[in-house]
Order: sequence, then structure tokens, then C-alpha cells
Amino acid sequence: MRTDRKKVVIGVMGGGTIAEKDRDAAYRLGSLVARQGWILLNGGRPSGIMEASAKGARDCGGTTVGILPGTDPASASEYVDIRICTGMGDARNVINVLSSDVVIACPGSAGTISELAIALKSRKKVILLNFDVGALFDQYAREGLLTRAETPEEAIESVKDFLTKTGR
Amino acid sequence: MRTDRKKVVIGVMGGGTIAEKDRDAAYRLGSLVARQGWILLNGGRPSGIMEASAKGARDCGGTTVGILPGTDPASASEYVDIRICTGMGDARNVINVLSSDVVIACPGSAGTISELAIALKSRKKVILLNFDVGALFDQYAREGLLTRAETPEEAIESVKDFLTKTGR
Amino acid sequence: MRTDRKKVVIGVMGGGTIAEKDRDAAYRLGSLVARQGWILLNGGRPSGIMEASAKGARDCGGTTVGILPGTDPASASEYVDIRICTGMGDARNVINVLSSDVVIACPGSAGTISELAIALKSRKKVILLNFDVGALFDQYAREGLLTRAETPEEAIESVKDFLTKTGR
Amino acid sequence: MRTDRKKVVIGVMGGGTIAEKDRDAAYRLGSLVARQGWILLNGGRPSGIMEASAKGARDCGGTTVGILPGTDPASASEYVDIRICTGMGDARNVINVLSSDVVIACPGSAGTISELAIALKSRKKVILLNFDVGALFDQYAREGLLTRAETPEEAIESVKDFLTKTGR
Repeated sequence: MRTDRKKVVIGVMGGGTIAEKDRDAAYRLGSLVARQGWILLNGGRPSGIMEASAKGARDCGGTTVGILPGTDPASASEYVDIRICTGMGDARNVINVLSSDVVIACPGSAGTISELAIALKSRKKVILLNFDVGALFDQYAREGLLTRAETPEEAIESVKDFLTKTGR
Repeated sequence: MRTDRKKVVIGVMGGGTIAEKDRDAAYRLGSLVARQGWILLNGGRPSGIMEASAKGARDCGGTTVGILPGTDPASASEYVDIRICTGMGDARNVINVLSSDVVIACPGSAGTISELAIALKSRKKVILLNFDVGALFDQYAREGLLTRAETPEEAIESVKDFLTKTGR
Repeated sequence: MRTDRKKVVIGVMGGGTIAEKDRDAAYRLGSLVARQGWILLNGGRPSGIMEASAKGARDCGGTTVGILPGTDPASASEYVDIRICTGMGDARNVINVLSSDVVIACPGSAGTISELAIALKSRKKVILLNFDVGALFDQYAREGLLTRAETPEEAIESVKDFLTKTGR
Repeated sequence: MRTDRKKVVIGVMGGGTIAEKDRDAAYRLGSLVARQGWILLNGGRPSGIMEASAKGARDCGGTTVGILPGTDPASASEYVDIRICTGMGDARNVINVLSSDVVIACPGSAGTISELAIALKSRKKVILLNFDVGALFDQYAREGLLTRAETPEEAIESVKDFLTKTGR
């Protein structure tokens, strides 16, 4: 009997302060992740992409994991089920990335960029969802490690392709 | 409508190399944690107290979270559902403790002692389950932060008392 | 009597695999940092910008500090005097940045980008030395937090201006 | 020509709130460490064993390194030369230990105990200076990894023995 029920974990990164259309996309992304039976993991805070994606996943019955910068579980979004308190500030960004099978980076600022940079350095698959980072990570795009998506649906397809290719 | 469904998280700490009776107690502790509807959190590795407590929780339909020292989710016990990869070695002990509402310390060695020391320093409730640490943390015992239990059942009662007192 | 002799700490970030001209610039930068009586701090490893900048500082009698990803002090560049072993992998990038008064980013790849992103998020002054990051951090450039330099000498002038302005 | 001038690093751990005689011993210990030409490393804060040992080392012309829990270098003791800001709270205890060649543990509470536990787990030599930890770490004492000293002078002799034996 197979007892290992490790689920696919999708890390959804993105800014705390965001445009309405990015919020909508993050919500939809979260709901699609949940419908696939995948776990949604993010930075846990009650704002921006984090809150929207967690709400989307929760509304579709998904499981949400938040890796918090602080020590207080009550600082998490109410839509986060599993609250990991690191007390390590931005060093928790590394944990976000390492704990994800695939990272989807929504629009954000310096914090989000640090996460996708560490993800690529750690050889994680990264999908940019409507997040323009210029030519900065082109070497990873050429390798196929970094891809772009214009809609949450497209991002999900990209994850599925990756999981199939890597035999998951 | 209340959307916050944050569950109580019980951190179960203890050694990787342990006696048979401690393994049995850890398994029973895990199953009791799951039956209460609490989440079991531990260090995630496939050995000792970690493996036994995760298996106990899993066998009773519980959710298990493992905070791993390394970067590879496959290094986790098969009984761990949510695998947090820190890549931080023993610094992850701090995360184990901060992410738990109550810490139950089973017999272990230096690693387990570091966890209960950090837990007490962080003002977390700690229950020693058949783990004799001498007089080392007596000041915390006098405050009621550190208590002792002889059976998993007693440890669970102690957690319930604590949760009632703190209004959880 | 003033006993506080905290020196200015300059974090020099940059890639492990680099072009010859960037190596030369990093060496010169290190030597100029030392001549100012500043401490040079970097990621500690014996390659690329890290090794070159540490050697430059050392050759001019400076003090060099390396924040290592691993646990073995012997993994450091021989030009690093103070070896901090974190055992935390890339999470040490956050420590590099937080421990520096000013960060100078030389050409590098994803690791270096993660460091300058975290630096800017932490509101640290960052100087890009011949490192083209496109328009990605333009909001910080507009605030004056991020500036550009074409030579090590120019970078040093930029640090001095910043220290004067902030009363150091 | 040998360019590696890595000095021996002695980690001095101990409580923030301490008895007068322990403060005196920590000061003397710091001054003896400096006279040996060793670097003194501690938790960096301006209290207890940390402050006293750093002052002792500084007064004898030594170099002092402080690994701070927070992000502000100004939170360090004035006697700390090199201030490493981790922003990681108690997770910095692991860095204290990993960065030291030998750990000397002076009287302290839970934080100090966590440090000596992690040190022993990491197979570091630990010397207890008038710090009674009961029988808790006896297995390490039997291996010779943990030894006891009653005076700073005795602790220094113990460090020298260890360095000789390990060919340093």
C-alpha cells in the first residue's frame, strides 16, 4: 500500500500592494490550484497576491500554507490553514521557494524578485504570470526553467506540462 | 461568517534514535493529536519520534507537517503531508517551535533539548513526555510553562487544560 | 571616552563566475574599501567577485568578513579574515545585506540579484557597479536608494556621499 | 607565502542577566581570549556575559564579533567590533555555534542551553565555565566533547589542549 500522499505544492509569490486586475488573477490562480488538488503555498500575510491567492484556493476547498516572516500565527491571512512562523524576516523567502515544486511569480516588487531569483538559483521551475522582469533572467528562459504565462489558466497548463515532463 | 479555520498545532519533538517504548508512546501521541482534530508538526525526518508520531497521526486521518533541515522534500517521512524545506539545518528547530501552539518533548538528545530550550525562551508551553531533563529548566516549571506527563493521554489532557486556560 | 569603534561595513556582492574585467574591478574596489578604513563584507567563497574583492582588501591591509552558506570555515576564501558559518544556504544572502551599511553590487546572476532585491526591500543604499539590471528596480533609483557607478572609484565616492548625507 | 590568516574563534555564550561573579569571570575570560590572539565571538547584545566578555577582549586589544538577533547594528554592545545582523531571532544561536572553533558556555538560561545543545549536536568542543547543567549532556562528557572548567584560566588551558590535539 502506498502511504506517501505528498501533494504537489505550488508557490504563489507576488506583491503586498497590487493592482485590482492582479488581485483578480491571483484569486483565480488560487482557485485553479485548489481544483487541481495541489497545495497552495505563499508568504502568508493578509495582503496583496498572498491574501487573494489564498482566498481563491480556500473558496475552492484547497489547502493553503503560509510561511510567515514573524513569530505570530495571528499575523497570517485568515485564508491560510497551515501557518509556519519563522521569525526570520525575509530569510523566509528562501523557505517559500525551497518548499514549492513550482513557483508562480505574480507582479510584485523587490521581495518577489528576490524570491524568483532564489528559485532560479535553486533550479526551481518558475512561471511569470503577467510579471515583466525585462531581460534580467533571460539565461534561465533559454534553458526553459523560466517561462511566461498571460492568464492563470495558461500558468496551470504550464505547471501540468512541467509535472508530466518530470514524471510527477 | 467565520473563515478563519486555523487549527491547533502541536509540535512533537524527540530523538531520531529511540527506545521501542518511546516509539510506541510517540505513535499513540500522534494518533491522539489527530483524533482531537489538531495538526501534528515535527522535524519531518523518517526516523525516531518524528516518524512514529507522524504515522500515528496519519493512521487516524490527521494532518502532519514536517519542517525539514534540508532542501529535498523526498527526505521527509512518508507520513508527512506538508513538507517545509528550509535548507537551514538545525536553525529549523526554531521554526518547529515558533509554529507550534504547544510543544510536547519526547525523549531525545541534544537536538530535542535545543528545541525545548528555545520553546521556553519563546514563552511556549512545553510538556515533557517521559523525558527527564533534571533540574535544568526548573524555573520554567515553577511558572507552569513546563509540565510533565507520563503517558500520551496525560499529555493530551495537559494540552487541553492549557488551551482552555488561554481561551483557545 | 568613546569606546564604540564600529567601522563602516561595505557589502560587496557579485557572481562566482565572472569576466576578467569584473574581477579586476572587484579587486580594485576591495583595495579602495580597505584604504578608506572600511570593513569589506561578502559571501566568503573562494571564487569570482568574492575572492577578488577580499584579496584586494587584504592586500591593502583591510579587514574582510565572509558570510558563508555552509558550516565549514575552511570553505572560505583564504583572503577572508572573519568567517561566519551560517549553514543556511542562500538564506545567508539576507545576512550579507543586513550586516552592510552600503551594498555595492558587481555583475552577477540570480544570487546577486536576490541580494540587491533584499537590500532595497530592507531600505539599504545599493550601488550598481557596471551591473545592468534593466528597468527592474527603477522605483528605487527614482528615490535615490539605488545608484549606478562605472568605476570602483566612482562607487567609493558614492558611498562617501551617502555616509556624509546620513551623518556617518 | 601563506596568506591564510584565519584566527581561532572562541564563542563565548551565557546569559543576559547574570550574577556579579559571573560577569567578572566573563570579563577575565574575554581578556584572556584576546591575549591569546584569538577572536571572541558572542551574541552581540549589550548585556550580561556578552557585554562583559566583549569588554574584556576589547580592553586587551582583541577583536570582537557579535551575531545579533535583530537587524540594527546599533543594538550591539559598544565593545563589539564586527556586527553581524541576522534578523533571525534565536536562529542566530546556530550561527554563533557554527562560527566558533570552540564554545565556552558561561552560566545562562534557556538561550545558552540551546546554544550548547546545538554545539554538541554539531560536534563542537564545548567547555562549561562554572555552568552546572546536571547530567543532561553526560554522553558528550564521556566522549570528551564536553568538559568543565572552574576558572577562565582553566577554560583557556582546555582550549589550548584541544587546539593542540586537533593540530591547530
